[in-house]
Amino acid sequence: MNREDLKLYLVTDRGLLHKSHSLEEMVLEAVAGGVTMVQLREKNISTREFVELGMRLKSALAGTGVPLIVNDRVDVALAIDADGVHIGQSDMPYEIARKLLGDNKIIGLSVESLEQLEQANQLDVDYVGISPVFSTQTKTDTAPAFGIEGLRKAVSLSKHPTVAIGGINMITAPDVLSCGVDGIAVVSAIVASPEPRSAATALKELLD
Amino acid sequence: MNREDLKLYLVTDRGLLHKSHSLEEMVLEAVAGGVTMVQLREKNISTREFVELGMRLKSALAGTGVPLIVNDRVDVALAIDADGVHIGQSDMPYEIARKLLGDNKIIGLSVESLEQLEQANQLDVDYVGISPVFSTQTKTDTAPAFGIEGLRKAVSLSKHPTVAIGGINMITAPDVLSCGVDGIAVVSAIVASPEPRSAATALKELLD
Repeated sequence: MNREDLKLYLVTDRGLLHKSHSLEEMVLEAVAGGVTMVQLREKNISTREFVELGMRLKSALAGTGVPLIVNDRVDVALAIDADGVHIGQSDMPYEIARKLLGDNKIIGLSVESLEQLEQANQLDVDYVGISPVFSTQTKTDTAPAFGIEGLRKAVSLSKHPTVAIGGINMITAPDVLSCGVDGIAVVSAIVASPEPRSAATALKELLD
Repeated sequence: MNREDLKLYLVTDRGLLHKSHSLEEMVLEAVAGGVTMVQLREKNISTREFVELGMRLKSALAGTGVPLIVNDRVDVALAIDADGVHIGQSDMPYEIARKLLGDNKIIGLSVESLEQLEQANQLDVDYVGISPVFSTQTKTDTAPAFGIEGLRKAVSLSKHPTVAIGGINMITAPDVLSCGVDGIAVVSAIVASPEPRSAATALKELLD
Protein backbone atom coordinates (compact mmCIF):
# COMPACT_ATOMS: atom_id res chain seq x y z
CA MET A 1 0.00 0.00 0.00
CA ASN A 2 1.16 3.50 -0.80
CA ARG A 3 0.41 6.26 1.64
CA GLU A 4 -1.31 8.07 -1.26
CA ASP A 5 -3.87 5.28 -1.52
CA LEU A 6 -5.45 6.58 1.67
CA LYS A 7 -6.14 10.01 0.23
CA LEU A 8 -9.83 9.65 -0.58
CA TYR A 9 -11.04 6.49 1.08
CA LEU A 10 -14.59 5.33 0.40
CA VAL A 11 -16.44 3.13 2.92
CA THR A 12 -19.59 1.44 1.63
CA ASP A 13 -22.99 1.11 3.27
CA ARG A 14 -25.77 -0.39 1.15
CA GLY A 15 -28.35 1.05 3.53
CA LEU A 16 -27.41 4.59 2.50
CA LEU A 17 -27.20 3.95 -1.22
CA HIS A 18 -29.12 6.31 -3.50
CA LYS A 19 -31.79 4.37 -5.37
CA SER A 20 -30.49 5.31 -8.82
CA HIS A 21 -27.58 2.82 -8.86
CA SER A 22 -26.22 -0.45 -7.49
CA LEU A 23 -23.36 -0.60 -5.03
CA GLU A 24 -20.93 -1.58 -7.78
CA GLU A 25 -22.11 1.26 -10.00
CA MET A 26 -21.76 3.75 -7.15
CA VAL A 27 -18.23 2.53 -6.39
CA LEU A 28 -17.14 2.73 -10.03
CA GLU A 29 -18.56 6.24 -10.35
CA ALA A 30 -16.78 7.26 -7.17
CA VAL A 31 -13.50 5.82 -8.44
CA ALA A 32 -13.95 7.71 -11.71
CA GLY A 33 -14.35 10.82 -9.56
CA GLY A 34 -11.08 10.22 -7.70
CA VAL A 35 -11.62 7.73 -4.86
CA THR A 36 -8.27 6.03 -4.12
CA MET A 37 -9.31 3.13 -1.86
CA VAL A 38 -12.53 1.23 -1.17
CA GLN A 39 -13.63 -0.52 1.98
CA LEU A 40 -16.56 -2.91 1.75
CA ARG A 41 -18.33 -2.48 5.05
CA GLU A 42 -21.63 -4.26 5.34
CA LYS A 43 -23.50 -5.46 8.39
CA ASN A 44 -26.67 -7.57 8.51
CA ILE A 45 -25.58 -9.57 5.50
CA SER A 46 -25.10 -13.31 5.21
CA THR A 47 -21.62 -14.63 4.59
CA ARG A 48 -22.75 -15.89 1.18
CA GLU A 49 -24.04 -12.46 0.13
CA PHE A 50 -20.94 -10.76 1.53
CA VAL A 51 -18.67 -13.03 -0.52
CA GLU A 52 -20.75 -12.58 -3.68
CA LEU A 53 -20.87 -8.79 -3.29
CA GLY A 54 -17.13 -8.74 -2.61
CA MET A 55 -16.44 -10.76 -5.76
CA ARG A 56 -18.55 -8.41 -7.86
CA LEU A 57 -16.76 -5.38 -6.41
CA LYS A 58 -13.37 -6.96 -6.94
CA SER A 59 -14.18 -7.61 -10.61
CA ALA A 60 -15.50 -4.07 -10.98
CA LEU A 61 -12.29 -2.62 -9.53
CA ALA A 62 -9.92 -4.86 -11.50
CA GLY A 63 -7.52 -2.75 -13.51
CA THR A 64 -8.28 0.49 -11.66
CA GLY A 65 -5.38 0.10 -9.23
CA VAL A 66 -7.72 1.01 -6.37
CA PRO A 67 -7.28 -1.38 -3.41
CA LEU A 68 -10.33 -3.21 -2.07
CA ILE A 69 -10.43 -3.71 1.69
CA VAL A 70 -13.00 -5.77 3.60
CA ASN A 71 -14.33 -4.55 6.93
CA ASP A 72 -13.95 -6.98 9.84
CA ARG A 73 -14.29 -10.29 7.96
CA VAL A 74 -10.95 -11.99 7.36
CA ASP A 75 -12.79 -14.99 5.87
CA VAL A 76 -14.48 -12.83 3.25
CA ALA A 77 -11.18 -11.08 2.48
CA LEU A 78 -9.49 -14.46 1.97
CA ALA A 79 -12.41 -15.80 -0.07
CA ILE A 80 -12.30 -12.95 -2.58
CA ASP A 81 -8.54 -12.36 -2.36
CA ALA A 82 -9.11 -8.76 -1.34
CA ASP A 83 -6.17 -6.41 -0.84
CA GLY A 84 -6.70 -6.44 2.90
CA VAL A 85 -8.99 -5.91 5.84
CA HIS A 86 -9.96 -3.07 8.10
CA ILE A 87 -10.48 -4.14 11.68
CA GLY A 88 -11.98 -2.36 14.64
CA GLN A 89 -11.38 -2.88 18.33
CA SER A 90 -14.19 -5.48 18.52
CA ASP A 91 -12.98 -7.42 15.50
CA MET A 92 -10.33 -10.09 15.23
CA PRO A 93 -7.17 -9.28 17.23
CA TYR A 94 -4.55 -7.75 14.91
CA GLU A 95 -1.89 -10.43 15.44
CA ILE A 96 -4.27 -13.23 14.39
CA ALA A 97 -5.52 -11.30 11.38
CA ARG A 98 -1.91 -10.73 10.28
CA LYS A 99 -1.09 -14.39 10.68
CA LEU A 100 -4.11 -15.45 8.60
CA LEU A 101 -3.61 -12.84 5.88
CA GLY A 102 0.17 -12.84 5.59
CA ASP A 103 2.56 -9.93 5.28
CA ASN A 104 1.48 -8.83 1.84
CA LYS A 105 -2.05 -7.80 2.70
CA ILE A 106 -3.10 -4.40 3.98
CA ILE A 107 -4.41 -4.27 7.54
CA GLY A 108 -5.92 -1.06 8.84
CA LEU A 109 -7.00 -0.63 12.44
CA SER A 110 -9.58 1.77 13.88
CA VAL A 111 -8.48 3.69 16.96
CA GLU A 112 -11.10 5.47 19.01
CA SER A 113 -8.87 7.10 21.64
CA LEU A 114 -5.30 8.30 22.10
CA GLU A 115 -4.67 5.24 24.26
CA GLN A 116 -5.70 2.93 21.42
CA LEU A 117 -3.56 4.97 19.04
CA GLU A 118 -0.54 4.41 21.25
CA GLN A 119 -1.30 0.68 21.36
CA ALA A 120 -1.49 0.69 17.55
CA ASN A 121 1.98 2.28 17.46
CA GLN A 122 3.28 -1.02 18.88
CA LEU A 123 1.79 -3.02 15.97
CA ASP A 124 2.90 -3.15 12.34
CA VAL A 125 -0.51 -2.16 10.98
CA ASP A 126 -0.47 -0.49 7.57
CA TYR A 127 -2.55 2.48 8.65
CA VAL A 128 -4.83 3.63 11.43
CA GLY A 129 -8.34 4.95 11.02
CA ILE A 130 -8.94 7.72 13.53
CA SER A 131 -12.61 7.40 14.41
CA PRO A 132 -14.82 9.31 14.76
CA VAL A 133 -13.59 12.82 14.08
CA PHE A 134 -17.12 14.14 14.45
CA SER A 135 -20.19 12.34 15.67
CA THR A 136 -22.28 10.96 12.84
CA GLN A 137 -25.58 9.33 11.96
CA THR A 138 -23.92 6.61 9.87
CA LYS A 139 -22.37 4.72 12.72
CA THR A 140 -23.98 5.11 16.10
CA ASP A 141 -21.97 2.64 18.19
CA THR A 142 -18.90 4.85 18.25
CA ALA A 143 -16.71 6.33 20.98
CA PRO A 144 -16.75 10.08 21.77
CA ALA A 145 -15.59 12.17 18.81
CA PHE A 146 -11.94 13.31 18.61
CA GLY A 147 -12.82 16.76 17.30
CA ILE A 148 -10.27 18.77 15.34
CA GLU A 149 -7.83 19.32 18.20
CA GLY A 150 -7.99 15.67 19.24
CA LEU A 151 -7.41 14.62 15.64
CA ARG A 152 -4.38 16.93 15.37
CA LYS A 153 -2.89 15.39 18.48
CA ALA A 154 -3.60 11.82 17.29
CA VAL A 155 -1.97 12.47 13.92
CA SER A 156 1.12 13.92 15.59
CA LEU A 157 1.45 10.86 17.86
CA SER A 158 0.87 8.21 15.18
CA LYS A 159 3.80 6.35 13.70
CA HIS A 160 1.51 4.93 11.03
CA PRO A 161 -0.24 6.61 8.10
CA THR A 162 -3.56 8.03 9.20
CA VAL A 163 -7.01 8.28 7.73
CA ALA A 164 -9.72 10.28 9.48
CA ILE A 165 -13.33 9.10 9.49
CA GLY A 166 -16.63 10.30 10.89
CA GLY A 167 -18.68 13.25 9.73
CA ILE A 168 -16.29 14.37 7.00
CA ASN A 169 -17.85 16.25 4.10
CA MET A 170 -17.18 19.30 1.91
CA ILE A 171 -17.72 21.62 4.84
CA THR A 172 -15.64 19.83 7.47
CA ALA A 173 -12.86 18.48 5.21
CA PRO A 174 -10.60 21.60 5.15
CA ASP A 175 -10.20 21.59 8.94
CA VAL A 176 -9.58 17.83 8.92
CA LEU A 177 -6.89 18.21 6.26
CA SER A 178 -5.18 20.93 8.28
CA CYS A 179 -4.38 18.25 10.89
CA GLY A 180 -1.94 16.49 8.56
CA VAL A 181 -3.89 13.27 7.92
CA ASP A 182 -2.86 11.13 4.95
CA GLY A 183 -6.44 10.71 3.92
CA ILE A 184 -10.07 11.19 4.65
CA ALA A 185 -12.64 8.41 4.70
CA VAL A 186 -16.19 9.14 3.74
CA VAL A 187 -19.38 7.16 3.76
CA SER A 188 -22.56 9.14 3.26
CA ALA A 189 -20.90 12.10 1.49
CA ILE A 190 -20.41 9.80 -1.51
CA VAL A 191 -22.57 6.70 -0.92
CA ALA A 192 -25.79 8.64 -0.38
CA SER A 193 -25.18 11.08 -3.20
CA PRO A 194 -27.30 10.82 -6.35
CA GLU A 195 -24.08 11.77 -8.16
CA PRO A 196 -21.23 9.88 -6.50
CA ARG A 197 -18.76 10.83 -9.22
CA SER A 198 -19.26 14.56 -8.74
CA ALA A 199 -19.26 14.12 -4.97
CA ALA A 200 -15.90 12.35 -5.19
CA THR A 201 -14.50 14.87 -7.66
CA ALA A 202 -15.38 17.79 -5.40
CA LEU A 203 -13.72 16.15 -2.41
CA LYS A 204 -10.68 15.22 -4.49
CA GLU A 205 -10.24 18.80 -5.63
CA LEU A 206 -10.27 19.93 -2.00
CA LEU A 207 -7.59 17.33 -1.25
CA ASP A 208 -5.38 18.39 -4.18
CA MET B 1 -13.66 -37.28 11.64
CA ASN B 2 -15.14 -40.64 12.56
CA ARG B 3 -18.76 -41.30 11.75
CA GLU B 4 -19.24 -42.05 15.47
CA ASP B 5 -18.30 -38.46 16.34
CA LEU B 6 -21.68 -37.38 15.01
CA LYS B 7 -23.62 -39.55 17.42
CA LEU B 8 -24.60 -36.91 19.99
CA TYR B 9 -23.83 -33.54 18.49
CA LEU B 10 -24.27 -30.44 20.67
CA VAL B 11 -24.95 -27.04 19.10
CA THR B 12 -24.49 -24.04 21.40
CA ASP B 13 -26.69 -21.00 21.87
CA ARG B 14 -25.77 -18.61 24.67
CA GLY B 15 -29.24 -17.12 24.57
CA LEU B 16 -30.75 -20.39 25.81
CA LEU B 17 -28.17 -21.10 28.48
CA HIS B 18 -29.45 -21.91 31.95
CA LYS B 19 -28.28 -19.24 34.38
CA SER B 20 -26.46 -21.67 36.68
CA HIS B 21 -23.38 -22.10 34.46
CA SER B 22 -21.21 -20.53 31.77
CA LEU B 23 -21.14 -21.80 28.21
CA GLU B 24 -17.82 -23.59 28.82
CA GLU B 25 -19.17 -25.22 31.99
CA MET B 26 -22.31 -26.35 30.18
CA VAL B 27 -20.26 -27.84 27.32
CA LEU B 28 -17.92 -29.70 29.67
CA GLU B 29 -20.84 -31.11 31.62
CA ALA B 30 -22.51 -32.19 28.40
CA VAL B 31 -19.29 -33.87 27.23
CA ALA B 32 -19.03 -35.66 30.58
CA GLY B 33 -22.57 -36.87 29.90
CA GLY B 34 -21.68 -38.27 26.49
CA VAL B 35 -21.72 -35.51 23.88
CA THR B 36 -19.41 -36.54 21.01
CA MET B 37 -19.08 -33.32 19.00
CA VAL B 38 -19.59 -29.60 19.73
CA GLN B 39 -20.59 -26.83 17.36
CA LEU B 40 -20.11 -23.26 18.50
CA ARG B 41 -23.04 -21.44 16.94
CA GLU B 42 -23.43 -17.85 18.05
CA LYS B 43 -25.10 -14.95 16.33
CA ASN B 44 -25.15 -11.30 17.42
CA ILE B 45 -21.60 -11.53 18.69
CA SER B 46 -18.59 -9.47 17.68
CA THR B 47 -15.73 -11.22 15.92
CA ARG B 48 -13.50 -10.49 18.92
CA GLU B 49 -15.92 -12.11 21.37
CA PHE B 50 -16.47 -15.04 19.00
CA VAL B 51 -12.72 -15.69 18.81
CA GLU B 52 -12.26 -15.36 22.56
CA LEU B 53 -15.19 -17.66 23.32
CA GLY B 54 -13.89 -20.16 20.76
CA MET B 55 -10.45 -20.14 22.35
CA ARG B 56 -11.91 -20.77 25.79
CA LEU B 57 -14.03 -23.65 24.45
CA LYS B 58 -11.07 -25.11 22.61
CA SER B 59 -8.99 -25.09 25.81
CA ALA B 60 -11.87 -26.59 27.75
CA LEU B 61 -12.22 -29.43 25.21
CA ALA B 62 -8.49 -30.14 24.92
CA GLY B 63 -7.78 -33.76 25.78
CA THR B 64 -11.42 -34.86 25.56
CA GLY B 65 -11.13 -36.00 21.94
CA VAL B 66 -14.41 -34.20 21.17
CA PRO B 67 -14.13 -32.16 17.96
CA LEU B 68 -14.98 -28.44 18.07
CA ILE B 69 -16.72 -27.06 15.00
CA VAL B 70 -17.49 -23.39 14.34
CA ASN B 71 -20.77 -22.37 12.73
CA ASP B 72 -20.48 -20.27 9.57
CA ARG B 73 -17.29 -18.36 10.38
CA VAL B 74 -14.24 -19.73 8.60
CA ASP B 75 -12.15 -16.84 9.99
CA VAL B 76 -13.01 -17.78 13.58
CA ALA B 77 -12.31 -21.45 12.85
CA LEU B 78 -8.89 -20.55 11.44
CA ALA B 79 -8.16 -18.15 14.29
CA ILE B 80 -8.76 -20.77 16.99
CA ASP B 81 -7.57 -23.74 14.90
CA ALA B 82 -10.92 -25.46 15.35
CA ASP B 83 -11.50 -28.93 13.98
CA GLY B 84 -13.77 -27.57 11.30
CA VAL B 85 -16.78 -25.52 10.33
CA HIS B 86 -20.45 -26.12 9.82
CA ILE B 87 -21.89 -24.11 6.97
CA GLY B 88 -25.43 -23.43 5.90
CA GLN B 89 -26.83 -22.56 2.52
CA SER B 90 -26.36 -18.81 3.21
CA ASP B 91 -22.80 -19.18 4.44
CA MET B 92 -19.58 -19.35 2.48
CA PRO B 93 -19.80 -21.58 -0.60
CA TYR B 94 -18.40 -25.03 0.22
CA GLU B 95 -15.60 -25.00 -2.35
CA ILE B 96 -14.15 -21.76 -0.96
CA ALA B 97 -14.43 -22.95 2.63
CA ARG B 98 -12.58 -26.15 1.68
CA LYS B 99 -9.85 -24.19 -0.05
CA LEU B 100 -9.35 -21.92 2.97
CA LEU B 101 -9.47 -24.71 5.56
CA GLY B 102 -7.59 -27.44 3.70
CA ASP B 103 -8.36 -31.12 3.42
CA ASN B 104 -7.77 -32.02 7.05
CA LYS B 105 -10.59 -29.98 8.56
CA ILE B 106 -14.14 -31.16 8.99
CA ILE B 107 -16.77 -29.37 6.91
CA GLY B 108 -20.42 -30.09 7.55
CA LEU B 109 -23.19 -28.65 5.40
CA SER B 110 -26.83 -28.06 6.29
CA VAL B 111 -29.36 -29.30 3.75
CA GLU B 112 -32.92 -28.09 4.01
CA SER B 113 -34.49 -30.05 1.13
CA LEU B 114 -33.95 -33.21 -0.87
CA GLU B 115 -32.72 -31.06 -3.72
CA GLN B 116 -29.99 -29.57 -1.52
CA LEU B 117 -29.14 -33.04 -0.26
CA GLU B 118 -28.59 -34.21 -3.82
CA GLN B 119 -26.38 -31.19 -4.47
CA ALA B 120 -24.39 -32.08 -1.33
CA ASN B 121 -23.88 -35.58 -2.73
CA GLN B 122 -21.74 -33.95 -5.44
CA LEU B 123 -19.42 -32.33 -2.84
CA ASP B 124 -16.84 -33.99 -0.60
CA VAL B 125 -18.35 -32.60 2.60
CA ASP B 126 -17.64 -34.64 5.74
CA TYR B 127 -21.26 -34.85 6.79
CA VAL B 128 -24.64 -33.27 6.13
CA GLY B 129 -26.94 -31.79 8.72
CA ILE B 130 -30.54 -32.55 7.77
CA SER B 131 -32.47 -29.54 8.98
CA PRO B 132 -35.00 -29.14 10.41
CA VAL B 133 -36.54 -32.51 11.23
CA PHE B 134 -39.28 -30.81 13.21
CA SER B 135 -40.09 -27.12 13.43
CA THR B 136 -38.52 -25.50 16.46
CA GLN B 137 -38.40 -22.33 18.53
CA THR B 138 -34.58 -22.26 18.57
CA LYS B 139 -34.12 -21.34 14.96
CA THR B 140 -36.99 -19.57 13.25
CA ASP B 141 -35.45 -18.80 9.85
CA THR B 142 -35.65 -22.39 8.69
CA ALA B 143 -37.17 -24.19 5.73
CA PRO B 144 -40.26 -26.46 6.10
CA ALA B 145 -39.57 -29.42 8.39
CA PHE B 146 -38.60 -32.80 6.84
CA GLY B 147 -40.71 -34.80 9.28
CA ILE B 148 -39.89 -38.44 9.97
CA GLU B 149 -40.73 -39.76 6.51
CA GLY B 150 -38.80 -36.96 4.82
CA LEU B 151 -35.83 -37.63 7.08
CA ARG B 152 -35.92 -41.35 6.27
CA LYS B 153 -35.87 -40.56 2.56
CA ALA B 154 -33.03 -38.02 2.97
CA VAL B 155 -30.89 -40.48 4.92
CA SER B 156 -31.43 -43.17 2.29
CA LEU B 157 -30.36 -40.78 -0.49
CA SER B 158 -27.31 -39.34 1.24
CA LYS B 159 -23.85 -40.56 0.32
CA HIS B 160 -22.45 -38.70 3.34
CA PRO B 161 -22.82 -39.36 7.06
CA THR B 162 -25.93 -37.66 8.37
CA VAL B 163 -26.88 -35.79 11.49
CA ALA B 164 -30.47 -34.76 12.09
CA ILE B 165 -31.31 -31.43 13.75
CA GLY B 166 -34.40 -29.53 14.76
CA GLY B 167 -36.78 -30.36 17.55
CA ILE B 168 -34.98 -33.49 18.73
CA ASN B 169 -35.43 -34.41 22.38
CA MET B 170 -36.07 -37.48 24.56
CA ILE B 171 -39.56 -37.85 23.14
CA THR B 172 -38.79 -37.44 19.45
CA ALA B 173 -35.33 -39.09 19.37
CA PRO B 174 -36.46 -42.75 18.99
CA ASP B 175 -38.34 -42.04 15.75
CA VAL B 176 -35.41 -40.01 14.46
CA LEU B 177 -32.99 -42.84 15.21
CA SER B 178 -35.22 -45.30 13.39
CA CYS B 179 -34.41 -43.41 10.18
CA GLY B 180 -30.81 -44.57 10.23
CA VAL B 181 -29.08 -41.24 10.96
CA ASP B 182 -25.48 -41.33 12.18
CA GLY B 183 -26.23 -38.81 14.84
CA ILE B 184 -28.65 -36.38 16.38
CA ALA B 185 -27.89 -32.73 16.99
CA VAL B 186 -29.51 -30.97 19.89
CA VAL B 187 -29.57 -27.40 21.10
CA SER B 188 -32.15 -26.61 23.75
CA ALA B 189 -32.51 -30.20 25.02
CA ILE B 190 -29.02 -29.81 26.54
CA VAL B 191 -28.15 -26.09 26.44
CA ALA B 192 -31.27 -24.96 28.27
CA SER B 193 -31.17 -27.75 30.82
CA PRO B 194 -30.23 -26.91 34.43
CA GLU B 195 -28.43 -30.27 34.38
CA PRO B 196 -26.73 -30.61 30.99
CA ARG B 197 -24.79 -33.69 32.06
CA SER B 198 -27.92 -35.68 32.94
CA ALA B 199 -29.65 -34.38 29.83
CA ALA B 200 -26.75 -35.65 27.69
CA THR B 201 -26.55 -38.96 29.56
CA ALA B 202 -30.23 -39.66 29.01
CA LEU B 203 -29.95 -38.97 25.28
CA LYS B 204 -26.76 -41.03 25.04
CA GLU B 205 -28.48 -44.01 26.65
CA LEU B 206 -31.23 -43.78 24.07
CA LEU B 207 -28.61 -43.75 21.33
CA ASP B 208 -26.76 -46.78 22.73
